[in-house]
Amino acid sequence: MLVFLNGQFVPEARAVVSPHDRGFMYGDGLFETMRVCNGRPFRMAQHLERMARGADFLKIKCPFTLEELQAYAGQLIEKNQMPEAILRVVLTRGPGERGYTPRPGGHPTMVMTLHPAPTLNPPMQWKLVTSLYCIPATDPLAPFKTLNKLTHVMAGLGAVEQGAHEALLLNSNGEVAETASGNLFWVSRNRVCTVPAGCGALPGITRAVVLEICAALGLPADERVIKPAVLRKTGGIFITQSALGIVPVVELDGKPVASSPLVEQIRLAYCERLLRP
Amino acid sequence: MLVFLNGQFVPEARAVVSPHDRGFMYGDGLFETMRVCNGRPFRMAQHLERMARGADFLKIKCPFTLEELQAYAGQLIEKNQMPEAILRVVLTRGPGERGYTPRPGGHPTMVMTLHPAPTLNPPMQWKLVTSLYCIPATDPLAPFKTLNKLTHVMAGLGAVEQGAHEALLLNSNGEVAETASGNLFWVSRNRVCTVPAGCGALPGITRAVVLEICAALGLPADERVIKPAVLRKTGGIFITQSALGIVPVVELDGKPVASSPLVEQIRLAYCERLLRP
Repeated sequence: MLVFLNGQFVPEARAVVSPHDRGFMYGDGLFETMRVCNGRPFRMAQHLERMARGADFLKIKCPFTLEELQAYAGQLIEKNQMPEAILRVVLTRGPGERGYTPRPGGHPTMVMTLHPAPTLNPPMQWKLVTSLYCIPATDPLAPFKTLNKLTHVMAGLGAVEQGAHEALLLNSNGEVAETASGNLFWVSRNRVCTVPAGCGALPGITRAVVLEICAALGLPADERVIKPAVLRKTGGIFITQSALGIVPVVELDGKPVASSPLVEQIRLAYCERLLRP
Repeated sequence: MLVFLNGQFVPEARAVVSPHDRGFMYGDGLFETMRVCNGRPFRMAQHLERMARGADFLKIKCPFTLEELQAYAGQLIEKNQMPEAILRVVLTRGPGERGYTPRPGGHPTMVMTLHPAPTLNPPMQWKLVTSLYCIPATDPLAPFKTLNKLTHVMAGLGAVEQGAHEALLLNSNGEVAETASGNLFWVSRNRVCTVPAGCGALPGITRAVVLEICAALGLPADERVIKPAVLRKTGGIFITQSALGIVPVVELDGKPVASSPLVEQIRLAYCERLLRP
């Protein structure tokens, strides 16, 4: 397996980073995860644009252009002969001195790796459980996919320990925010609903694709603040994330979730888009 | 320079970690920073005990005992001939598969590095500025020094951009919580005050030493919730952190801070403890 590391393709065993890398020291960086389908990372431009906005915000100078990264990703997929995979892109502030406040003039680290792709057919069916962990309702870092994911790691671990597949995270106002690995949707009176961007959740690329699909199919869609007690009374709950696409939720906090035919309709439309040349 | 990496002493250029290390992927780990004085890491047991509590909580199995780590740290200081230094200890969940939820059976990563020690005499005098970033008032991870420090990185960067040395962080209730790199104290009517542990701040080891010093010197000390507007009217503000010990604050949000003779008294007592054999 070859890894892309700072402009070079390096065998995995030699692809290493310094323990002085600020990504390793403080989680000082960003990442993106994409599904590679037929050799093409799905919605790569949107993912890299989110990363570029994050890098601007964090004041990390990305050493490659979007076009260069797209070309490198294509080469990585080709060299590894992995047209079906998950692509992970990481950008950190690079090696630095000890101390939180970064000094000027560092050299960012950029890594791209390929990982096995989980199957999409048949779809997963997840049991969701509300986590004790919550995320801030307002956080200047919320729009960016940063390397600070310990809350999500612990929420996911807690869910698995309870026999579930995934954790539901509320925000500090007690509203539904997101799941450990994705965005949350539900169906209410034939409207496809998701949490608005202001609730503290990461604005997901797959979430945006689902909203596009709803518009294309003529399905009414809403962004709504929702409390967990209200969510428990709805049906058609599903999770969106880049690796697995659309994941129907069959159980929430031990209670079965009513299904909705709209979920499968959206899921098929998503799979069709994934396969479009 | 030699680095301690998973039980071995390795030249810095060969001391590397995998980009699949969960510390690098998600900030999934912990760290501690200690001042090494006369070849001895100050309060190492207390630091490692905090790390051990964090590792228990995160379900990371630390591969070494406290006694082993103390012995390794002594060897690292000796081999590098750095009796005056900053020692950084990092424990991560180690390399893992992609995906937040960790799988069982991983091998944690343990790194110890030495860094130049900043001077303590004359003491720094810091300008402090209130950050736009805040930390959660309640967070199960607050008692632990995790690798998720991007909020503190950005707060520190913002302070430097405003011409200050350090950022004051409030919690999500608008109360004073901590600074980007340490705990906060102030003097009110000859009482030495600090924020209680429940405000979201990391319970610092140097903070605990200062409370010990107050008890030893017969100085009354209090833990108090404080709003920033009230803090701005107090004097004798100082920051405690492991690298610099006690740092007097001379300015807060552009206004001078009244000095208190208690700060220098505590600082000298701290330096004396640091030098005690």
